[in-house]
Amino acid sequence: MNTIVMKFGGTSVANIDRIKNVADIIKSKKKNSIKIVVVVSAMAGVTNDLCEKSKAISKNFSNEEYDVLLSSGEQVTSALLSGCLIDKGVKARSMLAWQIPIVTEGQHKNSRILSVNSKSIFKYLDEDYVVIVPGFQGISEQMKISTIGRGGSDASAVAVAKALNADRCEIFTDVEGIFTTNPQICNEAKKIEKISYDEILEMSSLGAKVMQSSSVQKAMMNNVEIFVKSTFSPEKSGTQILSDDKISYNKVITGVAYTNDDAKITLIGVKDKPGVASAIFKPLNDQNIIIDMIVQNISADSKKTDVTFTVKRDDMPKAKNIINELKKNIDYDDLLTDAKVSKVSIVGAGMITHPGVAYKMFDALSSKNINILVISTSEIRISVLVNDKNVELAVKTLHSVFELD
Amino acid sequence: MNTIVMKFGGTSVANIDRIKNVADIIKSKKKNSIKIVVVVSAMAGVTNDLCEKSKAISKNFSNEEYDVLLSSGEQVTSALLSGCLIDKGVKARSMLAWQIPIVTEGQHKNSRILSVNSKSIFKYLDEDYVVIVPGFQGISEQMKISTIGRGGSDASAVAVAKALNADRCEIFTDVEGIFTTNPQICNEAKKIEKISYDEILEMSSLGAKVMQSSSVQKAMMNNVEIFVKSTFSPEKSGTQILSDDKISYNKVITGVAYTNDDAKITLIGVKDKPGVASAIFKPLNDQNIIIDMIVQNISADSKKTDVTFTVKRDDMPKAKNIINELKKNIDYDDLLTDAKVSKVSIVGAGMITHPGVAYKMFDALSSKNINILVISTSEIRISVLVNDKNVELAVKTLHSVFELD
Repeated sequence: MNTIVMKFGGTSVANIDRIKNVADIIKSKKKNSIKIVVVVSAMAGVTNDLCEKSKAISKNFSNEEYDVLLSSGEQVTSALLSGCLIDKGVKARSMLAWQIPIVTEGQHKNSRILSVNSKSIFKYLDEDYVVIVPGFQGISEQMKISTIGRGGSDASAVAVAKALNADRCEIFTDVEGIFTTNPQICNEAKKIEKISYDEILEMSSLGAKVMQSSSVQKAMMNNVEIFVKSTFSPEKSGTQILSDDKISYNKVITGVAYTNDDAKITLIGVKDKPGVASAIFKPLNDQNIIIDMIVQNISADSKKTDVTFTVKRDDMPKAKNIINELKKNIDYDDLLTDAKVSKVSIVGAGMITHPGVAYKMFDALSSKNINILVISTSEIRISVLVNDKNVELAVKTLHSVFELD
Repeated sequence: MNTIVMKFGGTSVANIDRIKNVADIIKSKKKNSIKIVVVVSAMAGVTNDLCEKSKAISKNFSNEEYDVLLSSGEQVTSALLSGCLIDKGVKARSMLAWQIPIVTEGQHKNSRILSVNSKSIFKYLDEDYVVIVPGFQGISEQMKISTIGRGGSDASAVAVAKALNADRCEIFTDVEGIFTTNPQICNEAKKIEKISYDEILEMSSLGAKVMQSSSVQKAMMNNVEIFVKSTFSPEKSGTQILSDDKISYNKVITGVAYTNDDAKITLIGVKDKPGVASAIFKPLNDQNIIIDMIVQNISADSKKTDVTFTVKRDDMPKAKNIINELKKNIDYDDLLTDAKVSKVSIVGAGMITHPGVAYKMFDALSSKNINILVISTSEIRISVLVNDKNVELAVKTLHSVFELD
């Protein structure tokens, strides 16, 4: 191994003691004479505090100045960590986005990284420095600071790893890795050793957040191997994220994920004619309401149908209002809503080659008297909507049936 | 008037409401279509907080990273103020040191500004932007952040004013200007309308701090006219600092200043021979103890003399130890110390052309039974050391006698 990128999130650098702990992790790694670039987030709470300050000034605070403001948070962590390493006898230096530079598309608040000048970083790596890079920030071609969205330090780490052609990219967080399901509701949850980019994308969009989805996509596109590890138990192996052709699947599914912030809306007796689906979903989309699962039953007499879909629980009142407004344009008999539903999913690249997975899932749930409200599937995922009260039992049952215990 | 520089210190931007107040001051000035550059300090408390963080990491925190760390404070204020102006409908943008650039000598923690690229600033001034520049920060020719010492925002303001050939440089602070003496101990203190660079330098080294001395010197060398004004009563005229040839002195003295952190040390019966003064003061200097007033009486028999000098009260124990150590090399009979002494000074360029000022001062103090312990003078200043308990009376008496009431 030659070059690695290590990324530490906000909770990992939340205070001076934790920064010292991070410096120790880096120092012990540095012993093996590898080149190390460290990407850091702002100390936990700092970004929110800066954000609040901008809001106290204006609800429409300038996007350009927002980026100047928020990027200071990562600058502080970089300087503190670099100073801490130097204090521990490790050659180190911070390199801010403009010093490297990390060049972005230039959009403010939510930009994308175009390039990272690896030459300037290697100049110091070759002199045996540990280089500390603030995450989340870049500069535009017009030399303005532009940030890459909340949680953007993951994207910075992946972009730096790609630019340096690093051997690995280690994402340090407050959990030991990615688990087969949430250990808090299922004691039998196990840490996953290897998981594919596709699977982690399905898992994280289903609530198992350890890394920003767009960063996983970027890692996948550039084939950057990622290791998710715990800052608080760095000696443990963590979870490796890599392409599925490098994983031999001995299990049908990799994990059981769930969300508990869904709500279900059903329009009963919608007149079944072309364009009706569009008439329902366009106004919701216009109001930035994200629609997840959609089910439409074929009507017996081909004249009327029922349409069911799910939205985030927070969006439910807004969605209901819009649907009530629609009554003028769309003819439906009744509107039913249920804010106490959750989505339970099984995810696994292994299911592609194993038929009967869906049946096995439905059968297992039925054996526990869990009613399935809605079903949706992708190539490597099957999701069902159940009543909130059944979530824990559903997760435990599926975890056991698919031999993840 | 065409171009002005306005500088706001830490207390002026201490919280969001104060930043809004500063934006209002700038906005009302901007009405007259002048070009405005604003230099800001970090919000009060921020620099100390960052400084504490660095100390919590290491007593010998890296100077380079210290500069990266501390410069974030002014970056935050710049972004908030710029965003606030934009919110109030004023075209504004922040320009950080590296964006301008402001180039320093490159030394860390206490650098000096070499140049300010006025072209990049004028580019935006010409497009009618208010440009917000963080004080205290610059970059070296090696593209590293280097700060210019605590209180360095004054120096930044003067350097920017010089580079832009600004018509004036306004220093906004929490007092209404420079007073003939401290209003807290003398009700009759009046605001000074005009004061020379030399006088303000004498005043500020004597405790009347409104501006960093090195910044006044820089303003004097470059003939930058300064207006000291209050952020909280911006409508008031404040105090103008300019060269003495532009002031017509109708009063003999301009102000009465005092310090109350002095201590007096006397060596009794020192053998009077060449080299003895050096033998006393060299070891004190080596230990960074600043000596202020020095008096040596001629001895009656030309064999023994008494040497008196003052140091800062905090340095007194250290100085006493050094002098005790000296006993081995220097022959003296006794060591007397007094930590309850204060220096009272009259300052005024007018005294150059008025003889008898010293006599008038000593006579006035004597009439109040105030004993003078030590005397020292410069061209535009006469200082006397008195017992702490006499300070207030001495200041009031001199303020009245020299017609400042």
